[in-house]
Amino acid sequence: MNETQGAGLAALILAAGNGKRMHSQKPKVLCEVLFKPMIAWIRDWCSRAGIMEQCVVISPEGEEIRSYFPEGTAFAVQQERRGTGHTVMQAMDFLRAHAGGDILVLNGDAPFIDDETIRQALRLHRQEQAAVTIVTAEVEDPTGYGRIVRSRKNVSAIVEHADADDAVRDIREINSGAFWFRTDFLIDALASIGCDNAQGEYYLTDTVKVATGRGERVRAYCSENRDIVLGANDRRGLLKLNEIARRRVFDQLLEKGVNLLCTDGLIVSPDACIEPDATLYPGVIIKGNTRIGAGCVITSGSVVEDSVLGEGVTVNASQIYRSTVGDGARIGPFSHLRPDSHLAAGVKLGDFVEVKNSSIGEKTSVAHLTYVGDSDVGARCNFGCGVVTVNYDGLKKSRNTIGDDVFIGCNTNLVAPVTLGDGAYTAAGSTITEDVPGDALAIARARQVNKPEWSARFRGSKQKPGE
Amino acid sequence: MNETQGAGLAALILAAGNGKRMHSQKPKVLCEVLFKPMIAWIRDWCSRAGIMEQCVVISPEGEEIRSYFPEGTAFAVQQERRGTGHTVMQAMDFLRAHAGGDILVLNGDAPFIDDETIRQALRLHRQEQAAVTIVTAEVEDPTGYGRIVRSRKNVSAIVEHADADDAVRDIREINSGAFWFRTDFLIDALASIGCDNAQGEYYLTDTVKVATGRGERVRAYCSENRDIVLGANDRRGLLKLNEIARRRVFDQLLEKGVNLLCTDGLIVSPDACIEPDATLYPGVIIKGNTRIGAGCVITSGSVVEDSVLGEGVTVNASQIYRSTVGDGARIGPFSHLRPDSHLAAGVKLGDFVEVKNSSIGEKTSVAHLTYVGDSDVGARCNFGCGVVTVNYDGLKKSRNTIGDDVFIGCNTNLVAPVTLGDGAYTAAGSTITEDVPGDALAIARARQVNKPEWSARFRGSKQKPGE
Amino acid sequence: MNETQGAGLAALILAAGNGKRMHSQKPKVLCEVLFKPMIAWIRDWCSRAGIMEQCVVISPEGEEIRSYFPEGTAFAVQQERRGTGHTVMQAMDFLRAHAGGDILVLNGDAPFIDDETIRQALRLHRQEQAAVTIVTAEVEDPTGYGRIVRSRKNVSAIVEHADADDAVRDIREINSGAFWFRTDFLIDALASIGCDNAQGEYYLTDTVKVATGRGERVRAYCSENRDIVLGANDRRGLLKLNEIARRRVFDQLLEKGVNLLCTDGLIVSPDACIEPDATLYPGVIIKGNTRIGAGCVITSGSVVEDSVLGEGVTVNASQIYRSTVGDGARIGPFSHLRPDSHLAAGVKLGDFVEVKNSSIGEKTSVAHLTYVGDSDVGARCNFGCGVVTVNYDGLKKSRNTIGDDVFIGCNTNLVAPVTLGDGAYTAAGSTITEDVPGDALAIARARQVNKPEWSARFRGSKQKPGE
Repeated sequence: MNETQGAGLAALILAAGNGKRMHSQKPKVLCEVLFKPMIAWIRDWCSRAGIMEQCVVISPEGEEIRSYFPEGTAFAVQQERRGTGHTVMQAMDFLRAHAGGDILVLNGDAPFIDDETIRQALRLHRQEQAAVTIVTAEVEDPTGYGRIVRSRKNVSAIVEHADADDAVRDIREINSGAFWFRTDFLIDALASIGCDNAQGEYYLTDTVKVATGRGERVRAYCSENRDIVLGANDRRGLLKLNEIARRRVFDQLLEKGVNLLCTDGLIVSPDACIEPDATLYPGVIIKGNTRIGAGCVITSGSVVEDSVLGEGVTVNASQIYRSTVGDGARIGPFSHLRPDSHLAAGVKLGDFVEVKNSSIGEKTSVAHLTYVGDSDVGARCNFGCGVVTVNYDGLKKSRNTIGDDVFIGCNTNLVAPVTLGDGAYTAAGSTITEDVPGDALAIARARQVNKPEWSARFRGSKQKPGE
Repeated sequence: MNETQGAGLAALILAAGNGKRMHSQKPKVLCEVLFKPMIAWIRDWCSRAGIMEQCVVISPEGEEIRSYFPEGTAFAVQQERRGTGHTVMQAMDFLRAHAGGDILVLNGDAPFIDDETIRQALRLHRQEQAAVTIVTAEVEDPTGYGRIVRSRKNVSAIVEHADADDAVRDIREINSGAFWFRTDFLIDALASIGCDNAQGEYYLTDTVKVATGRGERVRAYCSENRDIVLGANDRRGLLKLNEIARRRVFDQLLEKGVNLLCTDGLIVSPDACIEPDATLYPGVIIKGNTRIGAGCVITSGSVVEDSVLGEGVTVNASQIYRSTVGDGARIGPFSHLRPDSHLAAGVKLGDFVEVKNSSIGEKTSVAHLTYVGDSDVGARCNFGCGVVTVNYDGLKKSRNTIGDDVFIGCNTNLVAPVTLGDGAYTAAGSTITEDVPGDALAIARARQVNKPEWSARFRGSKQKPGE
Repeated sequence: MNETQGAGLAALILAAGNGKRMHSQKPKVLCEVLFKPMIAWIRDWCSRAGIMEQCVVISPEGEEIRSYFPEGTAFAVQQERRGTGHTVMQAMDFLRAHAGGDILVLNGDAPFIDDETIRQALRLHRQEQAAVTIVTAEVEDPTGYGRIVRSRKNVSAIVEHADADDAVRDIREINSGAFWFRTDFLIDALASIGCDNAQGEYYLTDTVKVATGRGERVRAYCSENRDIVLGANDRRGLLKLNEIARRRVFDQLLEKGVNLLCTDGLIVSPDACIEPDATLYPGVIIKGNTRIGAGCVITSGSVVEDSVLGEGVTVNASQIYRSTVGDGARIGPFSHLRPDSHLAAGVKLGDFVEVKNSSIGEKTSVAHLTYVGDSDVGARCNFGCGVVTVNYDGLKKSRNTIGDDVFIGCNTNLVAPVTLGDGAYTAAGSTITEDVPGDALAIARARQVNKPEWSARFRGSKQKPGE
């Protein structure tokens, strides 16, 4: 049986903190590590551990957080900050709805927990029939963290750093802030904890006291992943999390056989899939759910976000957003694929090319200084330099349709909606406003006139060229 | 009372060194740290400490240095290199002009002194009525530096590393090369020091001997900023100064709440002001007196120099020089603002756009492959792709004037000087040489002709398209 | 006498390894360090040491390797992998052809050997009349390497790490895998070694046993260059080699007086020559045999490959391939020189400009959004914005010829082949299909017509602009 499947399995994510020390307009949990908000890391680790029932406690300023979760996610709002215990109390409806099961409670700003740790902690929690299982780690320097006081399996207390004597301070096993609770126990225990302390706050860790007082079992699952304890309170801490996360991704990529020649300035999303034998230059940025095929070469200055690249694609100092690129396509330098662009295999996009919301067929070449927007382009076409798909007339956007084997002359305007048949040809410098039948030539330009000796006169006088 | 205000307060900057070990054509003090010449660091620290009377001693090859100082700065030229004492002697006129006060003497190639150190050293100098106050620092490894021999407040000597016995070598307080002098004392003392030493040079540090010989007080102000002692003699040293300076700036930015996700290749001018919650990607370069508002996002590959960006501006892999950008504007990828460009709030500049010496009104969109030069553009305009403001006719440059709500068709030439009235419209592919009244359509292009079956014949023959 | 000259001097390069652990499609020795395949490093070190007779042993999958060597290089193919001794046996023809001399045997995947080490090892080899001279290095951590057991000059054995006792494991002098052999001895010895071991392989190092058994001299040349022992078996190792190689190049550049302000993401080819006082920004990539003159400034995002730049050239975020650029030229930002472009002194290329297979004369300006392909352009020309050399008609490519002092209007098409005489002028928006005589104006465009109040009506209706 999969340990993480079963009745009542749920997670409660504490995300009510503000970003004051971050000096951020956004809620703290939306601060990003590798371009992914911290809370999205938590959301995904829980999902990968099989916990689909999630409840998020936000502050009144945290409404934006809702949009990062799928429909069906539960939310609770904490009106005032009165400690972690109080935060959990806000989700009492969710807890009750999941009575009879187990619930994971964890912080929304400690992004390096992992699904394996979550699963293993649950396994221990259930095997031991514990009321609480604390997820812990053993670290070099435990200063500032709550220490796990235990005798073998049996945890007797979490002692905060400030309250610890020398013996306890020597303990290097610390509380990560994530806990598996028997949900029924948690509901009960929350009713028992008070706020009779210096800050006047309710502490979630006081539930451990409640458990030991009742003779319930408290366990600790010590993860091998020490980074689970890491969070960020300020920009310095957030930079540190980014550095750690970058290196973790690099380790995985190198292991897999991705060619990294220098990792300076390279940032790869934790959700990206880079195939072996692909090459990433320094300074490349891969965001979101991106897939990069074997043998691709992505050079410095490139950004690829939420896109799928086939095998052997070259992206040279170009940016690609929410698009797909077929095998062997070559892009750049200095090109730009805006969302919903679909390049077939073998397409060549040269320099200073923008593509937007268009499909381009196999082996079509768009070599330079061209904009392809809202168009469907066939295979083996050749776009001259300076071609513009005129997709907007000031009122509405329209699409162009271009067949196979079409040759579009330089500095041609294709005023949408027009259709160019297979094998059509447009003369350089033409503005095409009407359909062009297959194999026809469309031309729309004035004849050249030479005015001898004009330049010499012009250099003397001040007349306007063309007059 | 402000310590650094008062009669006769002045600074003498020693800048006569050459760049031989730098292998530089430029004088050594013009070598740059964070794109700012070392001497400009010194100039600004002195100014910030309230010392506006500055004199710079340059070598005959250092004439270029003059341009880095404001009018009214004094200069002296050292014809031959005969030691630091000799360098100071070249400025005797400046010293005499500031008799009766105090003078700061410091090197032009030790950029990390700071205004607070300068002020505090002067305070001590005056409180103690010292003849000389040496600015010092305590460092881990004093090897190579002159040691400060003192008994409590009383400094008895500066002993050069080469002349030091083991006991003196253990001293970790060292001479930074900056000194406050009672000006009258300095004038006198310079007359007393000789060049009776191995190199045959006059040493400024010999004035300490003169002072102690006369029973004058010598003091040392030990700065907490240890970097004040750092200078660069070669490219390796200069690289090191750049690294140190980069990290100092990063520390300030993080403290303030700027979002840095990876600092590789990031270089931020010490004179830049970046607001909290702005984001700088790796590889961004911010030069000179640049101001970047809250919530801005500046991505890799961007360069911003001497410009002012409002709040919430996005700059994606674009370069901006001596320009202003209003709130919420979006620029890039791959665009270029040349000097004297002024974008109002909400302007959108897409990819491959150049703007030069132009103003662009609110919410105007210039989406792609366009050049806006020497033009005044109104609000809510839409530039098609490939628009060119033809501002140069081979003899002179002229300006275009474009009203509000103007729609400019793709691949349009606007041959300056032309005026487009509010709400005017130009057809794609037109070359506009005459003014367009408000709400009028201007069109200047040939009608399209389709030649059926032409392509098929062309592919067989070799005729020129259009014939 | 030059030690490395003389009859029978030859090198045998072992390159039959596969890239399995690299997860690479390519043979392992083609994996790159600073964009140069490892085997090309070996090839060049041997050549620089004066060894022009080279034989490469490849695997059946390694045919691609042949293309990296000049004509006249010998190749042998190892059909099955049976150890280094077996690899060498495949080259028996080459060995016999070089009988009577000395032969260097070395691995194709240890790129940091150097010509000085090769030469010095040969000198020792010959002075000592050795049968074998092992190239060695003393390293901090010899774990995993074969230890050199010697009594003074006399080497008695190479002991593999796995076979070493504690005393031998303490030895820090290790086998680099490169050997000088008396060729005749090597031929004999190969006949004597067996494959009577756990792996059933023939080991080249067993020749040492053969030599000592016969009373022949075995020597070791211990190089000061410890990096000679480094190779890469996987992507992590390859990244490490790249890091080491980058730093070695930086050290040389700084020593020479090149201005590096931050080395993050900077990669400079080992074969590049950068003159003193040139400046390389972070993130610059210099590939292949590139020469960059004094005073050049190459900014972040630039790529220069196999090109020659004169003095004082500025390259701003641009890419240059197999081209030449004259003194004082300024390029970028965001421009692209494709192969066989030749810019004379003082040329200005602005932003979004592509040049391909063209020559451009002195002081010509191509300021923006222009493509110059297959063209010969004179001096002091001015290209307007959006100019296109129409060099391809769908069937064949043709060249344009442009004289001196030509002014080309904006958005002009020059439909090749056309010739523009000296001082010719084209009006903005013209498509030029015929030659333009010197000093003539060519114009090919329709007259402008203004349609009053059209816009207002259009905004109400849905008619197509221009109708």
